[in-house]
Amino acid sequence: MIAPAPGVAKSCRYGSHRVLEPAGALPQSAWRLDNTPAAKENEILCSVESLSIDSASFRQMREAANGDARAIGETILETVRTRGKQHNPITGSGGMFVGRVADVGAQLLDACEVRVGDRIASLVSLTLTPLALERIRGVDMATSRVDVDGHAILFACAHFARLPEDMPTNVALAVLDVAGAPAQVRRLTAAGSTVVVIGADGKSGLLACAQARERVGSEGRVIGIAPDASSRGATLLRTLGLVDDFIEADARDAASLLGVLPERIPELADLVVNCVNVPGTELASILCARDEGTVYFFSMCTSFTAAALGAEGVGKDVTMIVGNGFTKGHAELALDTLRARRPLLDYFTEIYGATA
Amino acid sequence: MIAPAPGVAKSCRYGSHRVLEPAGALPQSAWRLDNTPAAKENEILCSVESLSIDSASFRQMREAANGDARAIGETILETVRTRGKQHNPITGSGGMFVGRVADVGAQLLDACEVRVGDRIASLVSLTLTPLALERIRGVDMATSRVDVDGHAILFACAHFARLPEDMPTNVALAVLDVAGAPAQVRRLTAAGSTVVVIGADGKSGLLACAQARERVGSEGRVIGIAPDASSRGATLLRTLGLVDDFIEADARDAASLLGVLPERIPELADLVVNCVNVPGTELASILCARDEGTVYFFSMCTSFTAAALGAEGVGKDVTMIVGNGFTKGHAELALDTLRARRPLLDYFTEIYGATA
Repeated sequence: MIAPAPGVAKSCRYGSHRVLEPAGALPQSAWRLDNTPAAKENEILCSVESLSIDSASFRQMREAANGDARAIGETILETVRTRGKQHNPITGSGGMFVGRVADVGAQLLDACEVRVGDRIASLVSLTLTPLALERIRGVDMATSRVDVDGHAILFACAHFARLPEDMPTNVALAVLDVAGAPAQVRRLTAAGSTVVVIGADGKSGLLACAQARERVGSEGRVIGIAPDASSRGATLLRTLGLVDDFIEADARDAASLLGVLPERIPELADLVVNCVNVPGTELASILCARDEGTVYFFSMCTSFTAAALGAEGVGKDVTMIVGNGFTKGHAELALDTLRARRPLLDYFTEIYGATA
Repeated sequence: MIAPAPGVAKSCRYGSHRVLEPAGALPQSAWRLDNTPAAKENEILCSVESLSIDSASFRQMREAANGDARAIGETILETVRTRGKQHNPITGSGGMFVGRVADVGAQLLDACEVRVGDRIASLVSLTLTPLALERIRGVDMATSRVDVDGHAILFACAHFARLPEDMPTNVALAVLDVAGAPAQVRRLTAAGSTVVVIGADGKSGLLACAQARERVGSEGRVIGIAPDASSRGATLLRTLGLVDDFIEADARDAASLLGVLPERIPELADLVVNCVNVPGTELASILCARDEGTVYFFSMCTSFTAAALGAEGVGKDVTMIVGNGFTKGHAELALDTLRARRPLLDYFTEIYGATA
């Protein structure tokens, strides 16, 4: 209906100039990208050392390959050869990469604080990243990490983070993977407010609690909720004082949680942060929020309709926000959240750093 | 893990005291409700005159019944007999009802401005409304309206709207069905801002444009987007001056829309309202918003992951809000949106009022 403006196809900031098919698609929805390993004026060329495959995608490939690492490698080579990107055609998911900057297009030279040789991690999905692979060097079944020789293209400054030198690569990757959560929590939390974090003892939950606790100050309150009060994460939350209260509850059981709210969170929450990795916790999140409060869904298991109909069903006037993996400065803020809390960094290093 | 507090089961504001199975569920997720037609202290008993069945549910029943109205009626009687509510077990959806207040529980007498005899429409889904049917009086295949004799229970003041006497019932129902949209748009729109409404020529889109146009004032701009500039809704938008500009575009084709943005909306939008009734328009909505702008997804076709990954993929720092069907005062505001605009009311009356 609308003809693309003539200039768009040449160097689009969203990368549509790399789309081969179907015509008119953007890189993520495209079937196939041009993966020519040379930087155009608005692109960054990276040499890639490893891919962190999305867990859903890795599980699918592992099962299809009967657990054979070499066959998984072949599957990845075939996908990238066919599509010009590591976009698993069955799960629809990708992952991220680690590599070094090899060339910076003229348009981005001044805009980005980046130099050739910088070691970086991509912050956008492999499903939209042009990728050319020469060979697979190894597949680590335990961590979904695939060591490769290859090249990738990034379209803008916002799409990567420099890897820090003060922590193991795997720890940095684990943190960058959920970097949106602490940054959004910091932005949404007011001094003196009550914040509830559901799924508080996981990776994003811990970072969210840390930021919330700092922001609410001495007048505010942070309450963590998770199904097991004796998990290592839950213990750490209490030991480090990252929460003021902890409720042992399964958020899929909204009615039971509702039963303890009058006693444990009588004021209800100004902000509820959902960091749960299972479906069915939308209603519990809504019930924890006060009228005109905010519910921030960071969990990718969130169902849009369950959230919308849930709030309507209980007649609750809450603002529900879709977690955005991207926020300005989120990568540095997430890494700093660990740097400022040595025991939290030690915990992440123990859990995620061993395989670095 | 948590035992329900003793008081909860007796008269819960969310109606959990009406749940028969499974134990611990809330009314919407419950399989079966107690539909005894008598008001407890925190309930409102209504005599029901008609059900407006959700369109997905009605379509499923119509197909299963080979278009036989009597068989559809039997299906509804059977569902309500089995579940104590009109909760289609196949589509998972319900609808709303129209009726008259028959009794008000002691706790709500002072809290609600409601009298026995008031003619009302429910604002919460039939999937969580205890319902007992005596008989089906008729099934209107054209409008999904089912005339019945029966009784329903409401749990709180927020869950219904008095039907106005100054417009046909079907017009009021059509407006109340999307009442969240104009209220949320009014709340989110600032004077002087740029608002884009995608799916502008439909029911919720028209109301959203009307509220946005009033709020942005002479310094602001409202832009409607829809696939057909010659649709009656699109023509009305321009004739009544509810939009300052109209872009004929299919929002499923994000790349084409992206091509015209530099010329038509160079400043990009402070607020994007998605009122589209097809899937796949998340990315177009995100691309229309400026950095740090807001995208409000009112469409129930919205995919949470498409929105979350879409924003991350284009590295856009936008706040994405899940449309909440409930907002304080939304019913009156939606009806007033028509009352204040006679030609819009006439249009709604022509389109939706004929079958009243």
